[in-house]
Amino acid sequence: MPVFTEHSAASRELRVLPSFAPPLPRLTPLLSPATTEKYEVIVVGAGPAGLMLNLLLARYGLSDDSLLCIDSKSTTLKSGQADGLQPRTLETLKSLGLADEILCEGCQMWQVAFWNPSEDKDKIIERTSIVPDVAVPARFPHEVTIHQGRIERILETDLLRYSKRGVQRNTKLIDVTIDEDGDAEFPVVAEIETEGQRRTLRTKHLVGADGAHSAVRRSMGLKLEGESSDHIWGVVDLVVDTDFPDIRRRCAIHSPAGSVMVIPRERIATGDYLTRLYVQVPGDVVPDSDQQPEHGTGTPPVVDARARRSQVTEQTIFENAAAAFKPYYIRPKKDGAVDWWAAYQIGQRVTDNFSVKDSKGVNRVFIVGDACHTHSPKAGQGMNVSMMDSYNLAWKLAYSINGLTPTPPNGQADPILDTYHQERHTIAHQLIEFDRAFSSMFSGKIGAEDGGLTHDEFLEVFSRGNGFTSGCGVEYPENLTVNRRVNGNQNPISGTDYLSGILRPGRRLLNVRLVRHADGYRRDLQDDFTSIGRFRILCLASSDLLDPKGHSAKALTALSGTISRFPKSVVELVVIHPRLSREFMWNDIPREVKEHSEMAFYSGYEMDDVYGIYGVNPAAGAVAVVRPDGYIGVIVSLSDVEHAQSYLETLIRTV
Amino acid sequence: MPVFTEHSAASRELRVLPSFAPPLPRLTPLLSPATTEKYEVIVVGAGPAGLMLNLLLARYGLSDDSLLCIDSKSTTLKSGQADGLQPRTLETLKSLGLADEILCEGCQMWQVAFWNPSEDKDKIIERTSIVPDVAVPARFPHEVTIHQGRIERILETDLLRYSKRGVQRNTKLIDVTIDEDGDAEFPVVAEIETEGQRRTLRTKHLVGADGAHSAVRRSMGLKLEGESSDHIWGVVDLVVDTDFPDIRRRCAIHSPAGSVMVIPRERIATGDYLTRLYVQVPGDVVPDSDQQPEHGTGTPPVVDARARRSQVTEQTIFENAAAAFKPYYIRPKKDGAVDWWAAYQIGQRVTDNFSVKDSKGVNRVFIVGDACHTHSPKAGQGMNVSMMDSYNLAWKLAYSINGLTPTPPNGQADPILDTYHQERHTIAHQLIEFDRAFSSMFSGKIGAEDGGLTHDEFLEVFSRGNGFTSGCGVEYPENLTVNRRVNGNQNPISGTDYLSGILRPGRRLLNVRLVRHADGYRRDLQDDFTSIGRFRILCLASSDLLDPKGHSAKALTALSGTISRFPKSVVELVVIHPRLSREFMWNDIPREVKEHSEMAFYSGYEMDDVYGIYGVNPAAGAVAVVRPDGYIGVIVSLSDVEHAQSYLETLIRTV
Repeated sequence: MPVFTEHSAASRELRVLPSFAPPLPRLTPLLSPATTEKYEVIVVGAGPAGLMLNLLLARYGLSDDSLLCIDSKSTTLKSGQADGLQPRTLETLKSLGLADEILCEGCQMWQVAFWNPSEDKDKIIERTSIVPDVAVPARFPHEVTIHQGRIERILETDLLRYSKRGVQRNTKLIDVTIDEDGDAEFPVVAEIETEGQRRTLRTKHLVGADGAHSAVRRSMGLKLEGESSDHIWGVVDLVVDTDFPDIRRRCAIHSPAGSVMVIPRERIATGDYLTRLYVQVPGDVVPDSDQQPEHGTGTPPVVDARARRSQVTEQTIFENAAAAFKPYYIRPKKDGAVDWWAAYQIGQRVTDNFSVKDSKGVNRVFIVGDACHTHSPKAGQGMNVSMMDSYNLAWKLAYSINGLTPTPPNGQADPILDTYHQERHTIAHQLIEFDRAFSSMFSGKIGAEDGGLTHDEFLEVFSRGNGFTSGCGVEYPENLTVNRRVNGNQNPISGTDYLSGILRPGRRLLNVRLVRHADGYRRDLQDDFTSIGRFRILCLASSDLLDPKGHSAKALTALSGTISRFPKSVVELVVIHPRLSREFMWNDIPREVKEHSEMAFYSGYEMDDVYGIYGVNPAAGAVAVVRPDGYIGVIVSLSDVEHAQSYLETLIRTV
Repeated sequence: MPVFTEHSAASRELRVLPSFAPPLPRLTPLLSPATTEKYEVIVVGAGPAGLMLNLLLARYGLSDDSLLCIDSKSTTLKSGQADGLQPRTLETLKSLGLADEILCEGCQMWQVAFWNPSEDKDKIIERTSIVPDVAVPARFPHEVTIHQGRIERILETDLLRYSKRGVQRNTKLIDVTIDEDGDAEFPVVAEIETEGQRRTLRTKHLVGADGAHSAVRRSMGLKLEGESSDHIWGVVDLVVDTDFPDIRRRCAIHSPAGSVMVIPRERIATGDYLTRLYVQVPGDVVPDSDQQPEHGTGTPPVVDARARRSQVTEQTIFENAAAAFKPYYIRPKKDGAVDWWAAYQIGQRVTDNFSVKDSKGVNRVFIVGDACHTHSPKAGQGMNVSMMDSYNLAWKLAYSINGLTPTPPNGQADPILDTYHQERHTIAHQLIEFDRAFSSMFSGKIGAEDGGLTHDEFLEVFSRGNGFTSGCGVEYPENLTVNRRVNGNQNPISGTDYLSGILRPGRRLLNVRLVRHADGYRRDLQDDFTSIGRFRILCLASSDLLDPKGHSAKALTALSGTISRFPKSVVELVVIHPRLSREFMWNDIPREVKEHSEMAFYSGYEMDDVYGIYGVNPAAGAVAVVRPDGYIGVIVSLSDVEHAQSYLETLIRTV
């Protein structure tokens, strides 16, 4: 189309860039230039947990003047370590616009095959069953396996859109202390070292995302408690040559010669596909703990454990794998096909406190990820629980720093920061309990004759654990941000199958598919719950929406008033309607819908049965307040909107 | 998981980067350093067509020494111009791994609303119907609207993964000639100018992607022929304030005061949503042609046209829009809400030849995109047809340059390069024919009383055109790369509803959803047909696949032989099976399946009914050869695999 007249507004650079997350409003003054190097948050460690936290805080609006992330390594990870992303983590990455490369180039793991000793001695082992890897409703009904270093690269690349500095690498934490006398506003003192140069920084908050051997945890005197089991495993990433038929499925192989777990992995640049094998090294060792190094004790069982651990080599791993796969062969495809290998002793440990307060009760130092909890890799939890720690902490920290939380009376500490430990410590405990059961079961033998688990028992634990392992079944305990109180008989939710989507405070809002009123876009509801730090009121209107004096109209008017009580843009409104008595246009429904939710107003019956899935009676409707991380905070009936408002008022400063 | 022993292979950088497309094999020698600046391909223009071509050639393996792209502009486009991506273009971008940002951040346009004069004079206009915007099966059943500059940025960002230089900007083409005497291997001479500095380059091929006023077309003496209509339109991108209920749907408004087309657009950084309006400027002007400037002729009708065109201003566009929207109001949301506006006179023109040959018949200079064809923007075709020109040309040019095509006898020209004009000129003609009908219909009045089209007639043309406008109904004519001959009575395809997926040489392979044998991945078939320049043999096995002496087994053995005749990796095999008589494992089926297609072997009945959709009898099976651009080249029965082989041998050099 050749035009003969053309005019354009001056600067439209933003039309061509990928969208940026809008920062949160800031009600507190910005940092003023100071002689001492000061920050509001220092993140120690740039693994998945540290990068996730840093990226979220940068997106929420903390600038390079306010936020510093240091890491002792010189680059992202190049091999090995974690590789599994669970459905809830995928939902979270999607909510950040970071899921595409992972979904397209990672290995989507849809199925698990169980292999057990065969009755037919010639067969040795046989496939007992194939089941879906993810058995609970989720937006992405599968895991993805992909190299941890790639997750780090994706997070870091995106971070550079918001931060000029990115991660300050080759920099390690020497010590961290709390010193309120020196500067009460910036009481955390961190001594760091970059290539031999030491310097001392002050910060309002410091977060240790520095792994199982966390220097932050050590400096703060926090203890990682628990114990290791008596099982030693080897793990290897490689390109295999095998005739085993299920090599591209996740497999739990219990053979007479030991156990192996197969984790199919992503395609690599050669066009080959990686495989990860977890291989049991037979025999037991005495459990020990890396919190209590045994040097000098010299008792025979410990020597035994050390000796056995030192015997684990690439060759022994392959020998054990080859034995467990029989009658099938398995070997590295060719020289150089082995990417990485390691050995580990299963252990479950958790730190008692995920944060340390100053004398006024302000949470000053936090730990996230492996610094808080270590466990076996079998259930593919590590990277997920770690990133979700950060995802939980980030919005609370940003709200507190930006002054978006209500000012506590009498100089008290901001209570929202307490909820990080309350919520994530609960989950960490559940994680290690589950992992203890799951991994010891996995190291045991299957088969009735030797008193072990039956295959059915194993399968049962596996399936029951799926809600937890997928991340979709996580339920935070009641706290300031999770309110399960119901006024009178007004619980608008029926049903208790929360895993299948029934709304429940403390659980994430399940994705549903629906049709948008404004444009007929067939859309995922979670795409209106992106991770930009905003609270959302989800109003499931009742079937009287067309009645200007109906319950829905009243509730929407009240909700419009609620939204206006808070800083602009911090609370958004999403509205869904059930099947109504007739076709309608915008002017047939309360004007608040178009005013607040023109592009977030949906029919909830044309695709999924949204009211059915969420346990809401279409005649009565319901209102849920969803936190910035996608977890439901409170649920009220349409006639009890004040309860939702008072929930929000405990968390957000009014204007 | 703290490990106690860990080892990793040396360099695993590639584990963390996004995947690169593997280059094509190269059988011809690389360019040797020369005193004159020489290239194998020069692309003139870095709009969507030029960038698409350049990116594809770079991905196929042409280095910065071989490939140069110049553009006279200093940056990508910042406002205005094209904004619509059709379903087939989205499939193409998906096959390049470039669809995610577009799908997530563009405006997905799912519906069209038709507004017409109302019988009720108080209403003035009323909504007559809402229909799906895309009415044909497609992987993405909607259009996406997004600023053209953003498409350019996405293509250019990706180009920089393959090319260090990227686009050489601020560089314009002064002249291009063919001079075989000077250098028969590099006969194309291009004179270019970068910021006042002229230089002369030689190249094997040059492609003009330099738009409607193409300097390449002019230099080569090619003519853009056709004429403009008598309708003048204004177009404006802005944030609107309106009570018109369908502002977020594509709308065709025929009001008593004139016609308007509404194109909803993407959300911008302010959180607002853009809208594009096409507004008819009432009254007719005399058609003219920009190929024949009328200066000096001075006849009254032409003066009239010029005068009327010069009267089109931002204000007249809004006045006409406001009149057409009545009784609804529409205005820019606030100062600065107008992004861009332009005026144009509808015209349809096409160039007779899309390439120019040297004296030996070798296609040396090509034109793509607006340089070949111009038309009205109403059907949202421009950017799509232009990029698809390049998508068609790129693999042919790369095969020819890399020596992957058979060496023609007696120094003749490579016939594959002729097929670019044969295929795309046909489509360009169909485009302008369709556009002439569609746009003049659009400029006319709806309503029986004044002899215009009825709404039903308009809707009928709209729906019938959908196969064409979506890009999904494109069918290339028979040529060297599209072979519709059937040996005897062996056509394995029944049905003729090609738009719905029935296999047909010359049409793109419709996406289907299926379950992968190796891992249970529920997957899109098109994801095995990515744009990496490879031919694929799609074998739809017959139901006797488990019979080692069956038709399928014989065909698979033969196909394995076929693949081995060509350079490694150039021909891939994808296999689908119908429901079989029993469960099976790899060792129950021909070994060629696992050997060539371990990760591209699917059941074709668990999700979509693939055999039904493709028109293949499960008892008989079929084999289709799919070109690197996803269009089917030939279809044969399982017993006629030699015919597929001979098709491939006309296009690919054997080893």
